Amino acid sequence: MNTGQFAFVINIKNDKVIKAFGERVRELRKEKGLSQEDLANKADVPLSQIGRIERGEVNTTISTMYSLATALELSLRDLFA
Amino acid sequence: MNTGQFAFVINIKNDKVIKAFGERVRELRKEKGLSQEDLANKADVPLSQIGRIERGEVNTTISTMYSLATALELSLRDLFA
Repeated sequence: MNTGQFAFVINIKNDKVIKAFGERVRELRKEKGLSQEDLANKADVPLSQIGRIERGEVNTTISTMYSLATALELSLRDLFA
Repeated sequence: MNTGQFAFVINIKNDKVIKAFGERVRELRKEKGLSQEDLANKADVPLSQIGRIERGEVNTTISTMYSLATALELSLRDLFA
């Protein structure tokens, strides 16, 4: 296998932070009266990933966070309590 | 190659957001009078990655963001203008 094709990515994973973020997204989504499917469509993020994000299974990137914030009609800043 | 070993990751990449975040980290780092090396050591993030983040080359994850915020003595919320 030619490993050269995979850029060397250093990935720190902080489960506590990831879980807290997932809970925050769920809380904000419900506040807005959106289903996971509504949020998935608005953010143009697959439904399966919304579920994984809310369950704290995904180390979400800033680009996906921006899509979620925009769909929730919030700034990135307000995505964090 | 056994593709099964690579979890299917959906990665949205928003260069504008990534660049803005990099500039923000640089601005905050300088405000705190830290070099890239100081920030790398405090955040326990490789120096090379600090450079890539500030140049807007990396789609930073929430876990790395949390490490940066903590090193800059800020909340995740304050990491965003």
